Amino acid sequence: MSIPCSIGLLPNKPPTDVGSLIEKADLDGHDFVVVPIANPSFRRVLNENNEMSPEEHAVWKDRPVFDRKDLILNSAEWSGKVLGLFSDWIQLDSPNHNIRTCSELALKQEAEWASHINLTGIIFPVLDKQVHNTARVINSISTTISPQICIRVPLLQKGAVEDNMTWKTWNRLRTLLGHSNTKVGVALELTSELPSDERLLDMWLAEPVRTLIIPAHVFVSNAKGHPVLTKPHQNFVKKLIHKLEPDIIIHPPSVELYPSATDASFSQYIQYLYRHLPEPDEIEKFASGYFDSLQMPLQPLADNLENQTYEIFEKDPIKYQQYERAVYQALLDRVEYQSDVVTTIMVVGAGRGPLVNCCLRAAEHSLRKVHIIALEKNPNAYVTLQNAKANVWGDKVTLVFADMRKWKPKEKCDILVSELLGSFGDNELSPECLDGAQKFLKDDGISIPTSYTASIAPLASSRLYNNVNAYKSLSSFETPYVVMFRQVCSLADPEDLWTFEHPNKKDIPTDENPVNNLHNERYSRADFIIQHDMIMHGIAGYFDCSLYKDITISINPETHSPGMFSWFPIFFPVHQPIQITKESMVSIHFWRLTDQQKVWYEWSVAVNNKEGEETYVSSLHNPGGRSYYVGL
Amino acid sequence: MSIPCSIGLLPNKPPTDVGSLIEKADLDGHDFVVVPIANPSFRRVLNENNEMSPEEHAVWKDRPVFDRKDLILNSAEWSGKVLGLFSDWIQLDSPNHNIRTCSELALKQEAEWASHINLTGIIFPVLDKQVHNTARVINSISTTISPQICIRVPLLQKGAVEDNMTWKTWNRLRTLLGHSNTKVGVALELTSELPSDERLLDMWLAEPVRTLIIPAHVFVSNAKGHPVLTKPHQNFVKKLIHKLEPDIIIHPPSVELYPSATDASFSQYIQYLYRHLPEPDEIEKFASGYFDSLQMPLQPLADNLENQTYEIFEKDPIKYQQYERAVYQALLDRVEYQSDVVTTIMVVGAGRGPLVNCCLRAAEHSLRKVHIIALEKNPNAYVTLQNAKANVWGDKVTLVFADMRKWKPKEKCDILVSELLGSFGDNELSPECLDGAQKFLKDDGISIPTSYTASIAPLASSRLYNNVNAYKSLSSFETPYVVMFRQVCSLADPEDLWTFEHPNKKDIPTDENPVNNLHNERYSRADFIIQHDMIMHGIAGYFDCSLYKDITISINPETHSPGMFSWFPIFFPVHQPIQITKESMVSIHFWRLTDQQKVWYEWSVAVNNKEGEETYVSSLHNPGGRSYYVGL
Repeated sequence: MSIPCSIGLLPNKPPTDVGSLIEKADLDGHDFVVVPIANPSFRRVLNENNEMSPEEHAVWKDRPVFDRKDLILNSAEWSGKVLGLFSDWIQLDSPNHNIRTCSELALKQEAEWASHINLTGIIFPVLDKQVHNTARVINSISTTISPQICIRVPLLQKGAVEDNMTWKTWNRLRTLLGHSNTKVGVALELTSELPSDERLLDMWLAEPVRTLIIPAHVFVSNAKGHPVLTKPHQNFVKKLIHKLEPDIIIHPPSVELYPSATDASFSQYIQYLYRHLPEPDEIEKFASGYFDSLQMPLQPLADNLENQTYEIFEKDPIKYQQYERAVYQALLDRVEYQSDVVTTIMVVGAGRGPLVNCCLRAAEHSLRKVHIIALEKNPNAYVTLQNAKANVWGDKVTLVFADMRKWKPKEKCDILVSELLGSFGDNELSPECLDGAQKFLKDDGISIPTSYTASIAPLASSRLYNNVNAYKSLSSFETPYVVMFRQVCSLADPEDLWTFEHPNKKDIPTDENPVNNLHNERYSRADFIIQHDMIMHGIAGYFDCSLYKDITISINPETHSPGMFSWFPIFFPVHQPIQITKESMVSIHFWRLTDQQKVWYEWSVAVNNKEGEETYVSSLHNPGGRSYYVGL
Repeated sequence: MSIPCSIGLLPNKPPTDVGSLIEKADLDGHDFVVVPIANPSFRRVLNENNEMSPEEHAVWKDRPVFDRKDLILNSAEWSGKVLGLFSDWIQLDSPNHNIRTCSELALKQEAEWASHINLTGIIFPVLDKQVHNTARVINSISTTISPQICIRVPLLQKGAVEDNMTWKTWNRLRTLLGHSNTKVGVALELTSELPSDERLLDMWLAEPVRTLIIPAHVFVSNAKGHPVLTKPHQNFVKKLIHKLEPDIIIHPPSVELYPSATDASFSQYIQYLYRHLPEPDEIEKFASGYFDSLQMPLQPLADNLENQTYEIFEKDPIKYQQYERAVYQALLDRVEYQSDVVTTIMVVGAGRGPLVNCCLRAAEHSLRKVHIIALEKNPNAYVTLQNAKANVWGDKVTLVFADMRKWKPKEKCDILVSELLGSFGDNELSPECLDGAQKFLKDDGISIPTSYTASIAPLASSRLYNNVNAYKSLSSFETPYVVMFRQVCSLADPEDLWTFEHPNKKDIPTDENPVNNLHNERYSRADFIIQHDMIMHGIAGYFDCSLYKDITISINPETHSPGMFSWFPIFFPVHQPIQITKESMVSIHFWRLTDQQKVWYEWSVAVNNKEGEETYVSSLHNPGGRSYYVGL
């Protein structure tokens, strides 16, 4: 089994000999060690008590250079096995000008040395509440040195009024850095107490947690006297490993806690956890390699899908099973047992034929007689359909090569079956296609699907923000993406936006094409109460679809069809990360708009505080479909 | 006298004949009239009471076209003399899908017609509290039609809890439009009552008020029975005319208020106001043509100033008067009456010699003997100095061609005089220059200036935001500009940031050049309590300088030297407009930073609500001087 993360050792006191520390740690099962760059003696450069003469100090300030004896990491030989620690006496936000200036010089000196000896990462000490100058200095060094900088952030701060005080401080720093500084991450430090609310733990899944520090005192002793983590700690650590794959650093105590609490015992426990991570489920196996990557939504109406795309989606174990159940139930409801009536089923957008097979199986299973008409506009898929008819289906299936919005059938059908949904339900233009196709359907006919609903939830994800930002354009922040979420945190449960129902007799004159598409426009608002201070990077979108009566397919997290992998959620970014203070209400306004050539979405976000005052309103995203639209 | 704005007439009921309305209005002193585009009959397209058959309505929705009888403005012949009004029954944010959709179609129809007949502007009715869909539709039409769209906004809303409710609604709309939509402005409507707080009136100076509507009932009758505005109304209207030059629209009553309240009497009163606008002061005359335009700050250390630049600044009536007073006072303090002592005055950065003349006048006036050494590094200015010496000054002045940071004098001076200040005090590197020059100064010598302080205030200005945004780059939002403010509103009074004092014996060893420039770094924070909901587009910067003792020059609004025009304020933009809710505290962090080659500023803005919760923090602006710096 491959281990996703490395295990490191942060000794309780600075080593005198780094080489032997590494050897010893290796024997105890550690891949690397964490060591201060400089000795405590280096603090003299602050000159708080005149340790240096004015001249000596002035010379250092002008051209800072290490005295060899100030360094613990005085050689590049161990750099592959070592993470550095910045000195913890550095006070970048001191009100004292001299201490602040000398702290900056000292930090830059340590950072440049760490970069010189090729360290891959350096841990910055726990932040004070004042972080503005700290942010400026970290920003400055992050542009000039090669190592990653991880800010040490305890999960809970002792005595803090709020459980997320440390997150707020980290968030303040990260916002000052401008959100897109990928050189700076988090070294999260586990604490004995955990936040009261699960969502305060989940928030860290949306953050760039590169390292997890586990102090030994967080472990408890099990029945056999071995150090283990409590169940809640275990769950959180497993979730972090599963989603973020951080390196894990064990920080042993300065005194032995109990006989079996050896350095080796801690790392053995972490390795044990690694071996007992949950097996990936079907969806995760399918999505492997796609987590958090941005995919452009398919446009099957404008583009013809490729053979491989059909092949992948036909493998879904759940989707076609649900379609089969829906057709089966519709046949039972529509035709009496032992009747000779032949039910006409029209499959519109038949692709390579999976829904035709569903219908045939449903007919066989229900003992009803059917005739199937399969309509397809993609000439390449149509070849596969012809093969299937010739080799398997025979007379039971009639093939039609046509666009369902324009074809004029000779006879009407009893059941109209389609699979035109996108991740947001209507975003692949199912409503427009079925508006055209419903004239094939008898007045009392059944459309499968019968209805589908789009829903949304505000989402935090530092990773998705940076993936979008990498495109460096306004339009990339106004384009929805299909994304298998992993390093994200939903700020609230999803809320429904709007529903489409089929057939739509209310808006469309019988047997005619719709006069215009105004009835497929939608405007809705969803409100979300956000309990804690949070950051919002965009909007997660889902659909929930009734195929027929209570037979559904859904990717809404609250009703997700187990094991169905055909749809990942959709992600609508926002122009800038939005700061949300606790107990605020986030209102997301969403539009589905159309003109003669296209369909597009617009969205905007408003935040009201608990007094009902509007504290933020975004600009409209994607006005007029300027950045993204779906062609009709 | 030229009249800056046109006067228009908005009749109290729609005209039956636009042509004769224009003729009559012209006779009464109006330049244009304001007329609804469509008749009230056009409302039937909402089909609220089935005025149209379903088929008829469907046809209209598909291809909206005017029936000629629906139009009031049915011809292009008057377009130069007419401003349009959108129908006031249009409800873009109705909860009813049909009313919302038909309202959008009707509004687009009116807008496209107005554009077709070449109107220059259309007024949109007073906004409801719900504005999201309204914003979307206005945004959409503003990109396709040519007329300006002015949103009608009453100054006060009857019965509203807050005096700035209507501004908040406008601000919500404008923010949704994305701040940079210059096609949409404000038609501000004066109300009988005015907001309680002067700043709530001044906020409108920062907004794109294109038109001011004055309803007749706002006028009062004076002793002679003529309609006039009360003093507070007058002051506000004059201020608006002076700064924003809006067109003014008179809206007469539906019944005669009193015999002399004729249409002509209102327009005559406005013309009277125009004639009695305050005369521009010296600074305004000098700044004419520069209001709100962004100028790059001078870099006189890196670049050599041009002759014309010297010539303009030498004309300042106040600055050199203050320098003369300062030298005069220093001479009196330093040398006894009738003493034979010759005081050596060194003018560093003498330019074309204005300070040399100040010193000579001060010596003459004080009856003290002086010798002046004039130092200049600009070879072109040095030619002018040589002419002055040959023709006027003679032996009283010695010229030196050198950079003050490097020159080594033979003798030291008693008084060191310089004029190196920029709009922000230290931004043209006065501290660095005087650090080098102070070694010319005797131990008990006097530097003129003695000290200078930079101060800042948060600023709103839609116009400045758009001027910066026109550059379409991040760096333009991280560059300070020298600006003569006009269409701005200061959110609070300025606060001091930091001070430089000269000579600086504390940080610089006597007679030597400074070892490094760390002592000229600064970091400070200024806090501002903002009383009302506001928007912030950037930071205004000023300086206040003590030349000698209480003899000062200042551009800080609270202490501005009357009539001194040499410096306009400086403006530091912020990346995005910042929404501020009432009673919040805006904290501006500011840094002055240096390295071997350059000096630059960084800044960031945080907002805390009245509970002390941080509701906003900006990213660092101009980190590392990436967008703007001053070369050493």
